[in-house]
Amino acid sequence: MGLVNGFNSFRLIQSCPHTKARAGELLTPHGVVQTPVFLPVASQGAIKTLTPEEVKAVGMSMVLANTYHLYLRPGIGVIDKLGGLHKFMGWDRALLTDSGGYQIFSLAPLRRVDDEGVNFRSHIDGSEHYITPELVIQFQETLGADIIMVLDECPAYGDSLEKVKEAMERTHRWAERCQKAQKRHAQALYAIVQGGIFPELRRQSAEYLTSLGFPGYAIGGLSLGEPKKVTLAMIEETVAQLPEDKPRYLMGVGSPEDIVEGVARGCDIFDSALPTRVARNGALFTWQGRRNIHNAVYSQLDEPIVPDCNCYTCRNFSAAYLHHLFNSGELLAYRLATIHNLSFISSLINKIRGAILNGTFPSFKDKFLGGYQPANEELRLSQKQKWLKSRFKP
Amino acid sequence: MGLVNGFNSFRLIQSCPHTKARAGELLTPHGVVQTPVFLPVASQGAIKTLTPEEVKAVGMSMVLANTYHLYLRPGIGVIDKLGGLHKFMGWDRALLTDSGGYQIFSLAPLRRVDDEGVNFRSHIDGSEHYITPELVIQFQETLGADIIMVLDECPAYGDSLEKVKEAMERTHRWAERCQKAQKRHAQALYAIVQGGIFPELRRQSAEYLTSLGFPGYAIGGLSLGEPKKVTLAMIEETVAQLPEDKPRYLMGVGSPEDIVEGVARGCDIFDSALPTRVARNGALFTWQGRRNIHNAVYSQLDEPIVPDCNCYTCRNFSAAYLHHLFNSGELLAYRLATIHNLSFISSLINKIRGAILNGTFPSFKDKFLGGYQPANEELRLSQKQKWLKSRFKP
Repeated sequence: MGLVNGFNSFRLIQSCPHTKARAGELLTPHGVVQTPVFLPVASQGAIKTLTPEEVKAVGMSMVLANTYHLYLRPGIGVIDKLGGLHKFMGWDRALLTDSGGYQIFSLAPLRRVDDEGVNFRSHIDGSEHYITPELVIQFQETLGADIIMVLDECPAYGDSLEKVKEAMERTHRWAERCQKAQKRHAQALYAIVQGGIFPELRRQSAEYLTSLGFPGYAIGGLSLGEPKKVTLAMIEETVAQLPEDKPRYLMGVGSPEDIVEGVARGCDIFDSALPTRVARNGALFTWQGRRNIHNAVYSQLDEPIVPDCNCYTCRNFSAAYLHHLFNSGELLAYRLATIHNLSFISSLINKIRGAILNGTFPSFKDKFLGGYQPANEELRLSQKQKWLKSRFKP
Repeated sequence: MGLVNGFNSFRLIQSCPHTKARAGELLTPHGVVQTPVFLPVASQGAIKTLTPEEVKAVGMSMVLANTYHLYLRPGIGVIDKLGGLHKFMGWDRALLTDSGGYQIFSLAPLRRVDDEGVNFRSHIDGSEHYITPELVIQFQETLGADIIMVLDECPAYGDSLEKVKEAMERTHRWAERCQKAQKRHAQALYAIVQGGIFPELRRQSAEYLTSLGFPGYAIGGLSLGEPKKVTLAMIEETVAQLPEDKPRYLMGVGSPEDIVEGVARGCDIFDSALPTRVARNGALFTWQGRRNIHNAVYSQLDEPIVPDCNCYTCRNFSAAYLHHLFNSGELLAYRLATIHNLSFISSLINKIRGAILNGTFPSFKDKFLGGYQPANEELRLSQKQKWLKSRFKP
């Protein structure tokens, strides 16, 4: 009773014998996507600062767009009139839209949820809106992405077990309604496992959604401020209950180290605004960790930020030039940093997949994590909480 | 006694028999530049939002960078260490640096000028600086552009004849000192005619500087808020006194209509931040005049802003998508608009040159100006004065 079809199936190619890492491919109406795969975020129909050509040139084969943002602006009807989201944004590779659940529960003020749907106000102009699982499917069918997502209720980190359980059970009922509402089966509809930081809820959610038979399963409600070891434990609990032959999508992750950890725990698909967002703040990925290009050590450095990096930025510009552009507030700075960070993630994903295919993933993982100094966790959490708080502001 | 040399000479190819328009070419150490030519402005070593590849792709063969900005940040010494300005900014075509005169007299607070040089404060951090004609040549020799400019004193629009005359005479003395200070003769040093809106001063200035023998002559101190017919009259007064066989550079111009008028009056080189600045405000050039992409008429328009335009933006995106990007504050908006406006100017310049070469410039000019609705002059002047005022603020 699953909704798998020839256009949107997953093929498992190789599994790591020592970890849960796997290499596979997604067949989509817009091409084959090799997994593991990372999706950069085009919230409003554009990867911030980049053209579609550049997104391809840095090696991305699928991007994510936010139904919530596009619904509010320019409106689903406008994109319909203009020929669908692929045409509107000039992107001809695979595309995933999220359902808007996460944005409604984090960005929109004054929301009221009941079993039928969610009432919320726009974070842009305060206008009132009401959406249901059925509407969310209709919106995503109009947008026309290759992979679409069920509407879920996403509790905040810190919510009680009772509250998280209630949200999970509603998410389950909504997943069924989304499944029934789907009319365009060339799109793959993925379910979203919820359950917060409660292992028994995570297991229940994964089992229940699996019983409904979806072509893919996402892990939602993580990376919301909880300690990293809790995140990883929840991924493990969830993946253990998901079918082997379906793709697993770890939503909202993330950083280079988190992608490696997620792959090791059996996740295939990742998305996050982090690489592009930190790029615009001047944080550039290197194999030793993030570097802050504002730092004076770069002011006269006549070599690229990552000397052996093959990206457009590193092939053409010195760290000193990037430093100057950031210091001067030149818009080109944000582009060059975005190109570098996405190229880095692309290169990381290629290394990961190569290691899985030739059986060396565990040693690759140890070597990478041994050399890569992650952002200090305390700092990371406080930044994340500050960022989440700013988004929750009405 | 002119400083012309084989690397930086000007060749006149064809003159219009009915106007003063001419087609020619500049031979520079970084390639042949066909004239008329428009230089986009890379104030801080980057054309705002664009990579060097994109600047080439829109058809630009020479760009301008500001010595004043680069002197303050990152510093001339840093660019020297990094191999010169061409290498620093990744630009391998022709390059012109201005002297900083205009910026010091418009941007920097608390300036004190005497015959020896100018004392001013940085508009960035208030630090004190002192420059002389000799220093300005030394800076520009270090930066290494193909064309460099003398230090000039640029009076404001509205200054008295006495004040403008004094500034002009100082500009003349400084031009001689710059000429004497020049050591690297692979760079062409252009003089700058001043004289404000006073015809007799314009004539005096052009005659005097011509007697010194420079490889090119700029017309400075215009487009500072005076009525357009005054600007055009001053160009005519000046050009009448300049030698035929040397290039004439109309500084700070400009808009499509002003370029056409400038060419008709014998100018060969133009530079202005206007096309890129108005692009970032959402004003896009069309053959009928500027269009404001924020306007609701574009919200669902499923065709490019200029349907037969061959630029990357028009070939790939609808006006509705651009409208959406501007409305959403997406950084990609500023890039796509910049690409369009520079492509438009490039296309205009090509049409102008073609018309001069095949003897149809007067009819081209009439047809273009007849179809192109310039920005309302009153509005234009009040915007310009507001902008100048904001720049003069300490």
